[in-house]
Amino acid sequence: MDSPGAERTTVGWAARDPSGILSPYTYRYTLRNMGPEDVYIEVQYCGICHTDLHQIKNDMGKSNYPIVPGHEVVGQVLELGSNVTKHEVGDVVGVGLLVGCCRNCSACQSDIEQYCSKKIWSYNDVYSDGRPTQGGFAKTMVVDQKFVVKIPEGLQPDQVAPLLCAGVTVYSPLFHFGLRQSELRGGILGLGGVGHMGVKIAKAMGHHVTVISSSDKKKQEALEHLGADQYLISSDATQMQEAADSLDYIIDTVPVDHPLEPYLSLLKLEGKLILIGAISTPLQFISSMVFLGRKSITGSLTGSMKETEEMLEFWKEKGLSSMIEIVKMDYINKAFERLEKNDVRYRFVVDVAGSKLDQ
Amino acid sequence: MDSPGAERTTVGWAARDPSGILSPYTYRYTLRNMGPEDVYIEVQYCGICHTDLHQIKNDMGKSNYPIVPGHEVVGQVLELGSNVTKHEVGDVVGVGLLVGCCRNCSACQSDIEQYCSKKIWSYNDVYSDGRPTQGGFAKTMVVDQKFVVKIPEGLQPDQVAPLLCAGVTVYSPLFHFGLRQSELRGGILGLGGVGHMGVKIAKAMGHHVTVISSSDKKKQEALEHLGADQYLISSDATQMQEAADSLDYIIDTVPVDHPLEPYLSLLKLEGKLILIGAISTPLQFISSMVFLGRKSITGSLTGSMKETEEMLEFWKEKGLSSMIEIVKMDYINKAFERLEKNDVRYRFVVDVAGSKLDQ
Repeated sequence: MDSPGAERTTVGWAARDPSGILSPYTYRYTLRNMGPEDVYIEVQYCGICHTDLHQIKNDMGKSNYPIVPGHEVVGQVLELGSNVTKHEVGDVVGVGLLVGCCRNCSACQSDIEQYCSKKIWSYNDVYSDGRPTQGGFAKTMVVDQKFVVKIPEGLQPDQVAPLLCAGVTVYSPLFHFGLRQSELRGGILGLGGVGHMGVKIAKAMGHHVTVISSSDKKKQEALEHLGADQYLISSDATQMQEAADSLDYIIDTVPVDHPLEPYLSLLKLEGKLILIGAISTPLQFISSMVFLGRKSITGSLTGSMKETEEMLEFWKEKGLSSMIEIVKMDYINKAFERLEKNDVRYRFVVDVAGSKLDQ
Repeated sequence: MDSPGAERTTVGWAARDPSGILSPYTYRYTLRNMGPEDVYIEVQYCGICHTDLHQIKNDMGKSNYPIVPGHEVVGQVLELGSNVTKHEVGDVVGVGLLVGCCRNCSACQSDIEQYCSKKIWSYNDVYSDGRPTQGGFAKTMVVDQKFVVKIPEGLQPDQVAPLLCAGVTVYSPLFHFGLRQSELRGGILGLGGVGHMGVKIAKAMGHHVTVISSSDKKKQEALEHLGADQYLISSDATQMQEAADSLDYIIDTVPVDHPLEPYLSLLKLEGKLILIGAISTPLQFISSMVFLGRKSITGSLTGSMKETEEMLEFWKEKGLSSMIEIVKMDYINKAFERLEKNDVRYRFVVDVAGSKLDQ
């Protein structure tokens, strides 16, 4: 380990250009000096999210290379800044999509710092010291304690990784939009990493859960393994018609262009279509599909640190587990390829510590 | 007057084809027999709404000619069905966009019958007896008492006409979406008939009201006569940028295709863009404009009978007045022409009784 006070270096895997191919970032890049609020973390596991794919391929046109992606980080605390009271050395902790915020705006004051206009993303952003932020496909990270959550004892670190983005991305809107009570009928559109979390969490809340997918490929799994109550194929007009006006909400996890009308029509009066996927092209809808049923198209961005902690407790209390495929870092490009084809049940998690990045 | 029990006839002005030109419907069309719940009304005034324009021109592809439009009707009660207790002969009453509903569904049971899937529109629809419904540009109407509101004493009948659609169209979403409290900052997009009601009603609720318009033509009037606090020209990028993230809601009254991004960007965190205009082409937006601020695109359809009554009391209590241009029926085609060019301050109201339709 470097001596305290000195700049630390680390190693990770980075994308260098819009091909999105990751390779070892052999130049040992520099982490910032530990400040009094900082936690120095050794990464154990890091999930792969569809947002990572958008970022490494510059789909949003805002990628600054090299990019070390990864924002579903589970690790162990190696060292603490002098003011850190929330954590102890050796704790298993998590880091999600954000690592900074202004702390003064109304969003920050309301503990929904994910909506702070000065929030700092875990990677492909610039930290307050002017350095680029880099994510969790790396040996170590330095993160402000506010953005580090303690993982409750008894939860497996690999299992927990997808909770830190995918899980809280579902939990937060259900919480915010008053959709936590049981007996609701919810839809999960798209059964990827976020979708599978959606089924798990909504079921644990006591909802009747319908998975809506473009094909029947995942039908059996959705019903038998994930516990969904119903499975709708969006291209089947008869099925869709029969299910019209039946859902209180749909969490729309589809990260690419898609029509909204078929899903708006599934919603009950005052139902909510909640977008959580970043999509680079405009979405379309017919206004009457909204106003005739006082429906809403809304969206939600990850969750707050408070919600993340609450969700982890909920996850533990309900005894939930995620369905993941653990891979080593040298498989990451193949994993991104498969993720793009939605060929994963349901989240890749990279065993970062086991990949021995510095050898 | 016809003898009781016999079918009644009436005269009106109807559109015959998608040219939308109205002409006297000289064939004295038949009203239904009075049922026990029915109110027989002599029309005094009827407002002209942009929806009428869509309907007479078949913009939605669902127009069945001949169509007698008009759904902002004020009239006087001529006769009552045997079970009608709400009204008396001679009462001044109003009829809006709807004249029927199923009474059994959850919307009807919740007194939001405007969202009943079996609602019956005042015109261009089919009544429960199989006859076409016809609207208020006619000498008389027969309407179920549930859809007839009493106009509070002291309100002028011509002034009240635009409240029955335009007014309640603004009042209802402010009520429903929890936007009635004072101190809110609201936007009214489009200063037509509904927009001018929006300014009046939102100001009376104590809101800071910004009018957003495509030109500065109505600026002085909006600020000086309608009492708006601010006037934004949507094509002025600097103004729009300065006003970013400043509004709790926008009531979007624009009844033709328009981009949503400029207005989504004016909304604060969790702000609502409320669509109330029927638009025949799809609307577009970028998903991040919604989820980055947990904003909503939603909509609202007219208001319930209960809300209409409440709004009329509110209007009276606050001493409000509408800005209208009163015309006779033989001006109606010109009025529609001018409405299409948004050339009216701010609502045409036809003096139906004064137009002596049966002569």
